[in-house]
Amino acid sequence: MNTDTPRQSKTYVGWDIGGAHLKVARILSDGSIETVLQTACPLWQGIDKLEEAYHSVCDTLPTNDIHVVTMTGELADSFSDRKQGVYRILDAMAHLLQQSFAVYTGNEGIVNNEAIADIESVASRNWQATGEWLAERCREGILIDMGSTTTDIVPFKSGRIKVQGDNDATRMRYGELIYSGISRTPIMAIADRFDIDGVSYPIMAEYFATIADVYRLLGELPEDADLYPTCDNAAKTMDGSAKRIERMFGCDWDGDMRTARVKAQAIAKVQQLSISRALSTLLERNRLSERVCVIGAGSGYKIVQCIAEDLGLQFMPYHRLLNNLPKHLEDIACRCATAIAVADLER
Amino acid sequence: MNTDTPRQSKTYVGWDIGGAHLKVARILSDGSIETVLQTACPLWQGIDKLEEAYHSVCDTLPTNDIHVVTMTGELADSFSDRKQGVYRILDAMAHLLQQSFAVYTGNEGIVNNEAIADIESVASRNWQATGEWLAERCREGILIDMGSTTTDIVPFKSGRIKVQGDNDATRMRYGELIYSGISRTPIMAIADRFDIDGVSYPIMAEYFATIADVYRLLGELPEDADLYPTCDNAAKTMDGSAKRIERMFGCDWDGDMRTARVKAQAIAKVQQLSISRALSTLLERNRLSERVCVIGAGSGYKIVQCIAEDLGLQFMPYHRLLNNLPKHLEDIACRCATAIAVADLER
Repeated sequence: MNTDTPRQSKTYVGWDIGGAHLKVARILSDGSIETVLQTACPLWQGIDKLEEAYHSVCDTLPTNDIHVVTMTGELADSFSDRKQGVYRILDAMAHLLQQSFAVYTGNEGIVNNEAIADIESVASRNWQATGEWLAERCREGILIDMGSTTTDIVPFKSGRIKVQGDNDATRMRYGELIYSGISRTPIMAIADRFDIDGVSYPIMAEYFATIADVYRLLGELPEDADLYPTCDNAAKTMDGSAKRIERMFGCDWDGDMRTARVKAQAIAKVQQLSISRALSTLLERNRLSERVCVIGAGSGYKIVQCIAEDLGLQFMPYHRLLNNLPKHLEDIACRCATAIAVADLER
Repeated sequence: MNTDTPRQSKTYVGWDIGGAHLKVARILSDGSIETVLQTACPLWQGIDKLEEAYHSVCDTLPTNDIHVVTMTGELADSFSDRKQGVYRILDAMAHLLQQSFAVYTGNEGIVNNEAIADIESVASRNWQATGEWLAERCREGILIDMGSTTTDIVPFKSGRIKVQGDNDATRMRYGELIYSGISRTPIMAIADRFDIDGVSYPIMAEYFATIADVYRLLGELPEDADLYPTCDNAAKTMDGSAKRIERMFGCDWDGDMRTARVKAQAIAKVQQLSISRALSTLLERNRLSERVCVIGAGSGYKIVQCIAEDLGLQFMPYHRLLNNLPKHLEDIACRCATAIAVADLER
């Protein structure tokens, strides 16, 4: 979507509106990143949460920018269906931005918000934006974007995305969307039992702990990756996480950090194996060479690095593809890869 | 715990204080059941929920009764640990009843609330009370109490309970406690994928639907078994459940009830298989004869009947063991089997 004004005077703001987080990137006309940020946005509690999230970040964003929106938030169960979700999110953004804006569609490129014909190619297309951006730059590779809730795996070859799934349901079926992330995933959703020292320990089907507790305990939870309250509304500390994880196994934590860490390790292993398996399947299905590079994005990109290296694959963090990025923005740029991608695709 | 007053003048009230429901049974000195009721009691939201639940039922219960308490509610994550949970529940009951009362302990019988030495034999012992009561009457058999959240499997032989687990963690490990019930179990806790017509469909790790939606859709959810709001706070209707189940699979419901029911059937099958497997293991481990009778209790006792009959086992609902029980109390008596058992054990 080009406009009449000369390009060099513009700045571009990418909005990635998820079901749990709002991510925003502001990039200058030379492609350099000015701002990247993420804030909690619990859309399952209602569309007003998007307004709250917007107001928590909009002070730092000047007006008169060109705005580009992508989303997964339409799947929140506060909407009667995805179609309603897409419309309500777009309406809310129109109200907040007070101007027309661009929307990323997978199949028709970037279009004006008032000209959207096909809801399906707006709903949950954020992975496609990041994949498209990467495919243009790297020609061949595989993107693994491990976010708070889900992990997208997007292979690309000869400068084009190579996927079989076209929406959440089919992407899950083909292993291109793994419903497991670095912070929000409830432990009960990972498995109903975990092997520790050769013994299988069942867990409680209760919302007592999330994978954020697991990675916190293992020292692998990035700062600010976990923006939500803990399951018991208690402290985001090692002790708190140990207590919550032990509770999943029906135990009271006795203060032994080592035992709790062994359990956390067992849980992390099962989660990583599910991503690793999907990655192997996709490499094979798309006939990608063994020397292909895995590009890690999302707040879990360092977990992605471990998974790739365990399979003997090359790895590169997404931020390395960004020019002149200050070191202190590397983590947040990886986390907000899609917000950057949509802004840059519009540039 | 006997008292000085003559038995014939007494009535006995059994309190089964769970983490999600409060169950109460009032029985007369001849053993006949006067009142049985169940109310929601979301203890994870705090101990004041027990007071609310108590006040919602206490108008129907006269004072001067003998009260007996058992619990599982101490595992709620509003308590720092189980010990604190047990003490806070007992304190709350002391405050509410304004008199001393009896507490069921697995190992030391029924003791006065002010004389409890061993917290471990108070915490999550409700299954033992029901098992003990049954073992006295039936000599040999296997109790399956399928509640809203969990399923207890308690074999008994020669008039004694035959179990290996002694607390939640070990009972889960030995298959005596299955963390799966008829209403509160989130679908994501049952499995991460379900086979439908030979295809494996992954689901979202989101709290979009519970097993209550599954059984409602299959016409097998007993009335009043699901006292909690739905995941999306929308209607407890077939349509609402179909929509929530389809959302788990990443789909919008298109109005086709048949497709949604096929998915519900696939989920129910996996859940029932986990109970069925544990049952088979326990029959074998305890060398119970193939002609042993399965006694079904809990709001899911009719599901238990299907599981037992599929294995070619005899089945009897718990309510058939109660004398002179009016037909309209059969379901609620099954659901509150433990509350009846503790009251009757004290009689």
